[in-house]
Amino acid sequence: MGQVNKLAIIGLGLIGSSIAHATRRKNLAAEIAGYDSSADVRERAKVIGFCDVFPADIAEAVKDADLVILCAPVGAYKSIASSIAPHLKPGAILSDVGSVKSAVIRDVGPFVPKGVHFIPAHPIAGTEFSGPEAGFASLFDGRWAILTPSKGSDPQAVEKLRRFWLALGSQVDVMDAGHHDLVLAITSHLPHLIAYNIVGTAHDLEKVTEGEVIKYSASGFRDFTRIAASDPTMWRDVFLNNRDAVLEVLGRFNEDLAQLQRAVRNGDGKTLFDWFTRTRAIRRAIIDIGQDTAAPNFGRLPFQVYVPPPRARKPTKKKNRTAPKKPAKKTPGKPSRKAKRRRT
Amino acid sequence: MGQVNKLAIIGLGLIGSSIAHATRRKNLAAEIAGYDSSADVRERAKVIGFCDVFPADIAEAVKDADLVILCAPVGAYKSIASSIAPHLKPGAILSDVGSVKSAVIRDVGPFVPKGVHFIPAHPIAGTEFSGPEAGFASLFDGRWAILTPSKGSDPQAVEKLRRFWLALGSQVDVMDAGHHDLVLAITSHLPHLIAYNIVGTAHDLEKVTEGEVIKYSASGFRDFTRIAASDPTMWRDVFLNNRDAVLEVLGRFNEDLAQLQRAVRNGDGKTLFDWFTRTRAIRRAIIDIGQDTAAPNFGRLPFQVYVPPPRARKPTKKKNRTAPKKPAKKTPGKPSRKAKRRRT
Repeated sequence: MGQVNKLAIIGLGLIGSSIAHATRRKNLAAEIAGYDSSADVRERAKVIGFCDVFPADIAEAVKDADLVILCAPVGAYKSIASSIAPHLKPGAILSDVGSVKSAVIRDVGPFVPKGVHFIPAHPIAGTEFSGPEAGFASLFDGRWAILTPSKGSDPQAVEKLRRFWLALGSQVDVMDAGHHDLVLAITSHLPHLIAYNIVGTAHDLEKVTEGEVIKYSASGFRDFTRIAASDPTMWRDVFLNNRDAVLEVLGRFNEDLAQLQRAVRNGDGKTLFDWFTRTRAIRRAIIDIGQDTAAPNFGRLPFQVYVPPPRARKPTKKKNRTAPKKPAKKTPGKPSRKAKRRRT
Repeated sequence: MGQVNKLAIIGLGLIGSSIAHATRRKNLAAEIAGYDSSADVRERAKVIGFCDVFPADIAEAVKDADLVILCAPVGAYKSIASSIAPHLKPGAILSDVGSVKSAVIRDVGPFVPKGVHFIPAHPIAGTEFSGPEAGFASLFDGRWAILTPSKGSDPQAVEKLRRFWLALGSQVDVMDAGHHDLVLAITSHLPHLIAYNIVGTAHDLEKVTEGEVIKYSASGFRDFTRIAASDPTMWRDVFLNNRDAVLEVLGRFNEDLAQLQRAVRNGDGKTLFDWFTRTRAIRRAIIDIGQDTAAPNFGRLPFQVYVPPPRARKPTKKKNRTAPKKPAKKTPGKPSRKAKRRRT
């Protein structure tokens, strides 16, 4: 169930490395080959050792693989597809993890050889960290993976990929690529654009220093900075490749914001109160189905525990992991003068 | 140091109850009187018992108090101030915890009797929960409290209040009320408005169901729902009472968003990449000064622990607190058809 002989992972960042870890956890592949176009990333991945082999040649990585999963930024897919196409095994499944699906079908589809099953996929899981050190085996546990096969896809191949994602820990849905792109535009792409935007706005204000924004960030702002710390290359490619859906939901967002802005300007307390009331139910529902924690502040409180990010983690000191965070003693250093506001 | 004889807390929600808990933790007051205009809230607070007395009469609550702290929504301050003014002890300090400060000075200032020291304050701390059950003693630990005394304020009274907040666990800054309002507009008020707005937008889309938004929320959206679950009355009052500063930073936000929107429309990858890169440094700085955790996904991963919210919490079962969350077995129920889009 969900097992393959050889799995090839192309791109060894957060998602690629997590797939490798999760595959090993359940022993889902006899062999895992990991490839990354960056020699540095391949070396770092080799040190961690979450794949069996790390060939420097992409053709060798996909050779004889039953399942090939593209885990690179979607902007690189076209070039990758053209490189690997001649080396794919007949009967193999070619899949991916990209956050957009129509563009992936457009870019990869034409290169897929007859006899290879191309089934795009997207696991709805991640963190704000990137790189081979960021992956871990439980990333997909309880999250959703969406498959977007085309009408002509072989049902047996789709079922095989579905079982593979179930075995990785996911729940699995199947939907049309176009609908996927619209759903993700509102649940993922717009939130990221908004978060990147507000952090940029705060950075550029002249009357409030960056040091103040940082010090007082616990009042709401800090939540946005997590998402805005996500991988820039991945997110550039998402917005370049899901333009229409993003612009559609952004248009709606702007309409709504104009309404709230008018309510603030006019002192219209009723509109504000009504708007702020109905949004509570959605959070409740998200918690009820296990997609978020009900603990206050995402569980950050009452103790603010400092956990170094994966790459910088030192040999474990138990004390550091459980002791309440002491109040910071010093105020943040005076920030360098903010860069002049850029206009392009 | 930081101690008072009688402390009166007016408003027994998240902040008021947390002040009571934190005061008791360090034994900072010989007596704590807690008042709330809601008899139901007073009763619930009495059950928890974080104050010594819970008078039904606000005059009795503030009588003989050395320190009176208003912890109600700021829209109620004017009426509260007029009620308590005749009963304040000469030499007492009257303070508050409101998220806006200029409006508080405007509303409360005129009622303050000669000989009473009015020193507005704002602890930058909170969670998305509200009510007397939501408070806890460590809420202010390591966070910032901002005092906004006027030029004529008695330095000794300011120092006494500063020490009180230090003793509650906070770090303390002093600044001008107008500057406070602008700083908080960007670090707190705008993030809340944006979060409320995007959750509303998602709620109103016709082509994506609410069930889909909820299921796939781990891709970014869920982060916004926490903030958008904050108390509607408190936030209505914030926006009604910090209009100019909110409109100023919202204007900047809109300008910036138009720029990103144009970059998406034109496929301008360089602008997107540059924007997405510079925002990482701010998160790093926030983590470095202890105002957020560096753990991936705010520490929600790798285990998704379900902790019931304070009010609903059942007698502790240790197992539930540490066991990894099992993947939800059922998909969310079909959501009720979304309400027709409202326009006001």
